Formats: sequence, structure tokens, C-alpha cells
Amino acid sequence: MKDATAESYCAQHRERFLKEWQEFLRFPSISTDPAYAKDCDRCAEWLMRHLRSLGFDAQLISTPRKPLVYATKRFSDSGPRIAFYGHYDVQPVDPLELWTTPPFEPTWRDGRLYARGAQDNKGQLFYFIKGLEALAAVGALRGTMSLFIEGEEECGSEGITAIMPQLQERLASDVLLVCDTGCESLDRPAVTLGLRGIVGLTVTLSGLERDLHSGSHGGLVRNPATELARLIATLHNADGSIAVAGFYEGAEHLNRNDIRIAESQKFDIEEYKTLVGVEPLGGEAVQFSPVVRRGFRPTVEVNGIHSGYGGPGRKTIIPASAMAKITARLVADQDPDRCLDALVAHLTSHAPTGLTIGISERGVGGPPVLVSTDNQYVKKAAAVLTELKGRCEFLWEGGSIPVVAGMARLSKATPLLVGFGLEADAVHAPNESFGLAQFELGLQYVTRLLPRL
Amino acid sequence: MKDATAESYCAQHRERFLKEWQEFLRFPSISTDPAYAKDCDRCAEWLMRHLRSLGFDAQLISTPRKPLVYATKRFSDSGPRIAFYGHYDVQPVDPLELWTTPPFEPTWRDGRLYARGAQDNKGQLFYFIKGLEALAAVGALRGTMSLFIEGEEECGSEGITAIMPQLQERLASDVLLVCDTGCESLDRPAVTLGLRGIVGLTVTLSGLERDLHSGSHGGLVRNPATELARLIATLHNADGSIAVAGFYEGAEHLNRNDIRIAESQKFDIEEYKTLVGVEPLGGEAVQFSPVVRRGFRPTVEVNGIHSGYGGPGRKTIIPASAMAKITARLVADQDPDRCLDALVAHLTSHAPTGLTIGISERGVGGPPVLVSTDNQYVKKAAAVLTELKGRCEFLWEGGSIPVVAGMARLSKATPLLVGFGLEADAVHAPNESFGLAQFELGLQYVTRLLPRL
Repeated sequence: MKDATAESYCAQHRERFLKEWQEFLRFPSISTDPAYAKDCDRCAEWLMRHLRSLGFDAQLISTPRKPLVYATKRFSDSGPRIAFYGHYDVQPVDPLELWTTPPFEPTWRDGRLYARGAQDNKGQLFYFIKGLEALAAVGALRGTMSLFIEGEEECGSEGITAIMPQLQERLASDVLLVCDTGCESLDRPAVTLGLRGIVGLTVTLSGLERDLHSGSHGGLVRNPATELARLIATLHNADGSIAVAGFYEGAEHLNRNDIRIAESQKFDIEEYKTLVGVEPLGGEAVQFSPVVRRGFRPTVEVNGIHSGYGGPGRKTIIPASAMAKITARLVADQDPDRCLDALVAHLTSHAPTGLTIGISERGVGGPPVLVSTDNQYVKKAAAVLTELKGRCEFLWEGGSIPVVAGMARLSKATPLLVGFGLEADAVHAPNESFGLAQFELGLQYVTRLLPRL
Repeated sequence: MKDATAESYCAQHRERFLKEWQEFLRFPSISTDPAYAKDCDRCAEWLMRHLRSLGFDAQLISTPRKPLVYATKRFSDSGPRIAFYGHYDVQPVDPLELWTTPPFEPTWRDGRLYARGAQDNKGQLFYFIKGLEALAAVGALRGTMSLFIEGEEECGSEGITAIMPQLQERLASDVLLVCDTGCESLDRPAVTLGLRGIVGLTVTLSGLERDLHSGSHGGLVRNPATELARLIATLHNADGSIAVAGFYEGAEHLNRNDIRIAESQKFDIEEYKTLVGVEPLGGEAVQFSPVVRRGFRPTVEVNGIHSGYGGPGRKTIIPASAMAKITARLVADQDPDRCLDALVAHLTSHAPTGLTIGISERGVGGPPVLVSTDNQYVKKAAAVLTELKGRCEFLWEGGSIPVVAGMARLSKATPLLVGFGLEADAVHAPNESFGLAQFELGLQYVTRLLPRL
């Protein structure tokens, strides 16, 4: 076995790899919804047992919420200390009626595997694990490898955040690998150098005893649905900039060199329109280019708003209450706690009199993450990607991996973010999928990179 | 039997009356939701057979939508031609989880019967029918009595409106009785002299291929939820007045004498707050009193707004689309078609570029209704109410009975609107109910009024 290459090992065990991946995807590990708590636990246990079967010292570490899957193995006394971060939880699946096949029955169609989590993060996590398996089997690993796979990335990472200080010793490492990112296309693989931070809250307006008849009470009471719309409308200025006092503090600290590299890369507006259906006219479009808006500017987004009747026909009510779910993405030196406080202060001070405002589900995800293009690990990853595809791009993603900033700080490791997610994967949406070509490119990247670290 | 009084007849048959009423309430005749179409038909058939059993010549008249229950009987050649309008359909029942007992299993608690439609309009309709039964049984009716009971009052009365011209001959009458109204308390019975008109529409913003990841796309696309909130916020000015160009045309034609009478009546702000949970700070509160705002001023209300995620926790998406259901109440000489056009023009012209606006479920209910305090039928009703309770008030209700204006115009009848609905009945809301005392007062009013018309 030791004479084989990781690549030939992968080819030989390909069918089993894909079967195991599907098994992993069958767990409806939706972390945000308490109804799936047991499924999350079962998924974590399956993963732990799987890592044990690969020779890792694996265990579940309890947190105040979902268990953390921790696995470690010392391959040699010297050599790099490599940490890996991933997550076994997935997003909710609604609207369920838009799925072509059930989200937890993984189904192959046209070379893509369709399932919730097919990409984010179970698919990307799984090629990493299979790459590790291959490298270990052929004896190509040195140093120590430690995996930290949490179960709440999709809902704020509270569990792992709470026990983070206890993890300090286990986390100590040179490089922190993360594969929860993507690239523009498989011909343009990329190292992600920036992630945005994230905070969130839920705001409600209430006070009415019940839904009121809109004839008998229209013109008398303030309508919670109308008032919430008016409140949300105060969050942005007419030019798309954020109108929350103090919110931008720290966001101005832009790295001119990063921006220069970012803007030198192609952003095809027509292609974007084809992919998502609309032109990129949102955010601070008056002042900044799409690339800068996504990578280097903060946002305040409504993730959902609900009030009153939504069925067919008409229901002539003034809804008793209205709610909106809001998240903000943060950049540069914005402080998550201060941004969340600024949002709450804005909503509270702009709330209408006569109704009751409630702020709940306050959540601080994490601060933004930035890595330099000159970092040695970034250079190694770029070299592997260039070998495989003839080029390597650098990305400043708009997304957030809340816990990565905290882990990187505690571990003193360089976060190295390389993933093969594509827009077409439809993560967080109905019919999420991951292509076999993406899975296999991930496997190649992992088996080439790790021996060089 | 002919020697008995209607009152003693009612007392004797009270238990049966209440049982029949409950039977009527068991039909889930929700007109706005196609899922209940057959239940509406069954309810109409039950009502038709019930009226036949009382000696009426009853039939179902087909319309393009729900059948109209029509029943007529000539009691004498001379005497008044009395028409009656009511509806057998009810509002939807969501949120179902807030009902103490199932909405279509009528349940007595503390002297009130709880069920969807217990008051609106099955309860009020039923004391009218039972009053007729009693009067007919004791031979106290003269002239001709014709009932028109439709099945779409809660969703725009399209069916009866479509066939209205064919009904002209049958409708011809002196007075058109309507009992779909209410009063402040049973000690303050009232004749309703004004109803508001109503128009409605559904507005959607869409264009995104699917829900998008709010990290990868936040700052790039316009968020349909945020943009719909901003669009709704343009409908009103800061002082609560309506900002839609041309909308107020005709609303200024206020009758000073009506307003004087209306404002001389008590509107207890503390009592209102106790009933509905909030102070009456909505609408044009800067310029007009609550009574004037409800009876003499138009409104634009959001009946529902829905977009994106609404479950527990967080889902970091930019929702693919957003929708709101909107109705407007009209007064005085406002023209429904022109008001609806003005609303559509406003929404369309204020819609954000980069997203697609859709206007659907456009509906014109009916124009406003006004009756003079000097009318002979108003005086007769006021006299009966004064006999029963020592006083009679005049109301300008904020609600709408869309078809009443059209029927009154075609029949050349005076609309006479007296009902015993109370705020506590929670019409259109969970746990709708109607008190036995209200039902019995209605019965007394009907049995005293009809012989005097």
C-alpha cells in the first residue's frame, strides 16, 4: 500500500468514497431548528466513528449546544501542526416544494449530487477527509493533523464559541485549513483572503391584542406591518448606504493593495445576471464596484419579514404583529458587538410610538478575517492550484465563517481558505448540489497540498 | 299559533334556534381559499333548504363563483317590499393555533358561542332568519320579503356583482335590511349610516433566480424584502396621511352635519386601548379625531407582508421575492376604480429598478355608502332600538360591505344597517364569538321592526 500514490488510492476507492458521502448527507442536521437536534447528534456521532475508522483519535466534545467533532493524529514528531475547521450542520430546507428531489435523499443528476449540504459544508468537508484517508494510507503525511468539525456554523457557532478557551492547547497549530469557500469557476480556483464578519437579530413590532378588522380599525391603530416596513426603510439611505449611526466605524480601513488585486480580477456583469437573475444594482452601487461591495463593504440585509395574511385571496386585517430577521456583514476593523449595538439602537430609536418593539435572537457571529498574499501557506496553496489549473485567483468573499477568526486568533495559525464551491451549487437554497468534478478537484488539491505544508 | 306573539314563539323554540345556528356554523365556508369551495357549496345548500322549510320559495342562483342563496315570499299583496342582504361565507381561520377550540366546532363558553362566523355574518344572519320564522308563524308579516345571501363577502363579492344586473327585478324593493354591522355596546344600539368602500391588490417584487446567500450576494443585488419595505414606506407621509397621488380625490366631500353628530358621540380612548391593546395613534391622527378617521377618512393598510425565512434561528439569505397584500378603504365620493389605479400607479412608479414588480389580485369591492338621519326607515329602526334600550346611536362604520352600495342603487331601496356586533366578538381574528344576549337582542329587534316597515 505504501508504494501507491494518494491519487491511485483515491481512484481505487472512488465508489466507496461517493457512497460514504451520500450516507453523510442523509442526516437532516439542520442546526437552527430545535426539531432536528437529535439528527444533528446522530450526524456528529456518525462522523466521529468514521474518523476513528480512519485511525484518528476522535471524540465528541460537548458544548452548551451541539457537540463538536474533534479528531487528531500524530503522523511524525516533527513536521507541521495542521488544524482543519469544518461543519456538519446544514441550512433549513424551506421552501420544500421547490426541491426536485427530497433534500435528504442525495440524488445524482447530470454529474451533480443534489442534497441539502451536498456542498455546504458536508461535500467540501468530505473530500478533505477522503484526501486525508488516502494520504494516511500511503504514508504521505507528516506532523500532526487535528480536525475541528462543529455543528452550528449555520446558526451562529455558539457551542464552539463557548468552549473555545478550553480548546486552546488542542488548537495550537501553524496553519488552519478551511474548505467552506468557493471560486468563480473550476478553471479559476482561488484562495480566499477575506471573509466578512456577521451579526444578526430579530425585530418585532407588536402590541395589538389580536389581528384587527381593517375596516373597523383602519385609521385608528398603527399597522405593525406598515410600521415595520417603515422601520426597515430607515436602515438605508437612498444611495444604498447604511443609515445606522456609528455602524461604519472601522469599515473605512481598506487595504489599497488588496483592492487593487481584487479589482484587477474579472467580474462579468452579464454572467452574474445569468446566474442570479438580476443585475448587481444593490448595496452602495453608487460609490463602489461589485467586487469592492462584496469583499470590502458591510451590508445590512433583511433575511425574512413576516406579518399577517399571505394565502390566496384577501384577508382584511391589521396584523397583530410583524417580525423581520436581519443580519449584517462586517468588514475590516468593524467591531461585531459595537455594530450589533448600533443596529439595536437605531431600530429602537426609530420605532413608532404606540407599538411595542422587541429585539430577540441577538447574535454575534464573528469578526472579519484577512490574510496577506505574501503568507507562505497562501503561496503553497496558490502553487498547487496553479499546477492543477494553470492559475490561481485571490478572493475576498462576501460570506462569513463566524468561528474562523476566533480559531485563527487562538491557534496562532494562518487561516488558509481554499474551497471549490460554485454559484451553481445553490447553497442555502432549494436544490443545493455539488458536482463530481468539484469533489474530485478538491481531492486532488488536498492530496497535493498537505504533504507540502 | 296565530294568537301567539313572535316573542313567545321565539321563547318556545329557543333551544332549536340555537341548535340550528350551531349546525350552520359547522360549515367551513371560507370563500377566499379554493380548498373550501365544496364546503361553501354545501353551506349554501343547507341554507337554501332551511329557508324552504320555513315556507320560502328558495333557490341557489349560480354566479361565476359562489352560488347566491335567494329566497322570497309574498305575505300580502300590499305592504312593503323588503329585501335583506347577508353572507354565508367566513374569513380564513389562521393562525389556527391561537384558537381555544376548533373554529368549526361551535362551543359555548360563558354565554358566548365561539366559532368562525359566530358573528360575521352567520350569527347575525341567523337571528334575522329566526325572527322571520317567528313573525311568519304568528302571521305578523305584510308585503314581500326577499333574501339575498351571498358567499363571497369576505373576498370581494365577485359572484353576486357579476350577476347583479340580472337580479334587478328581484331586487326592486323599498328597504334593504343589512345586519352585518355593530354597536359600541348592547346598551348603545345603533343604526349605521356610513360604510367605507374597499379596493385591494397584491404586490410582489421578484427577479432573483432563487434565494441567494446573503454573504456572497449581500451588497450586490437589491434585496426584495428590503425593497418591498421601502416601497410600502412610500405609501404614507410622516403625518400618517396617504402619499399616493390622486388618491384623496373625492374624499374631501365631508358632510359637516354627519361629522357633528359623530363627534358628539363618546369615543373612550382608555376603553379602546383595553379592547385592542394600543392607543388610537394610527392614520391621520395629527389632523383628525378617531371617530372621523374611522368613518370619514380613507386608509391604505397592509394586510400581510411575507418574504424569506420566518422560522426559529437564522437563515442567511437574500429572499428571492417579497409580497404584500394591501387594501384601501374609501369614503365620500372616492371612486374605487380610480383609487385602485392610483395605488397601482404609485407602486409601479416607486418600484426599484433591478427587480420586477408584479400587481395581482386587483379587486374593486364597492364604493362608500351613506344614508341620511332623516330617512323614514332609519327613524323606524331608531324608534325600535330606543324602545328596547332607551337610546339609539348613529354610526359611520369604518368597515365595508362591498355589495351593499351596488344593491341599494339597483333596488332603489334605502339601505338600513342595524346589527349587534361588538368589538369583543373578534371578527376576522382567532376565537370569534357571538353572545347569546346579542343573538336575543337581534331577535327582538327583528320581530319588532319588520311588522312596522
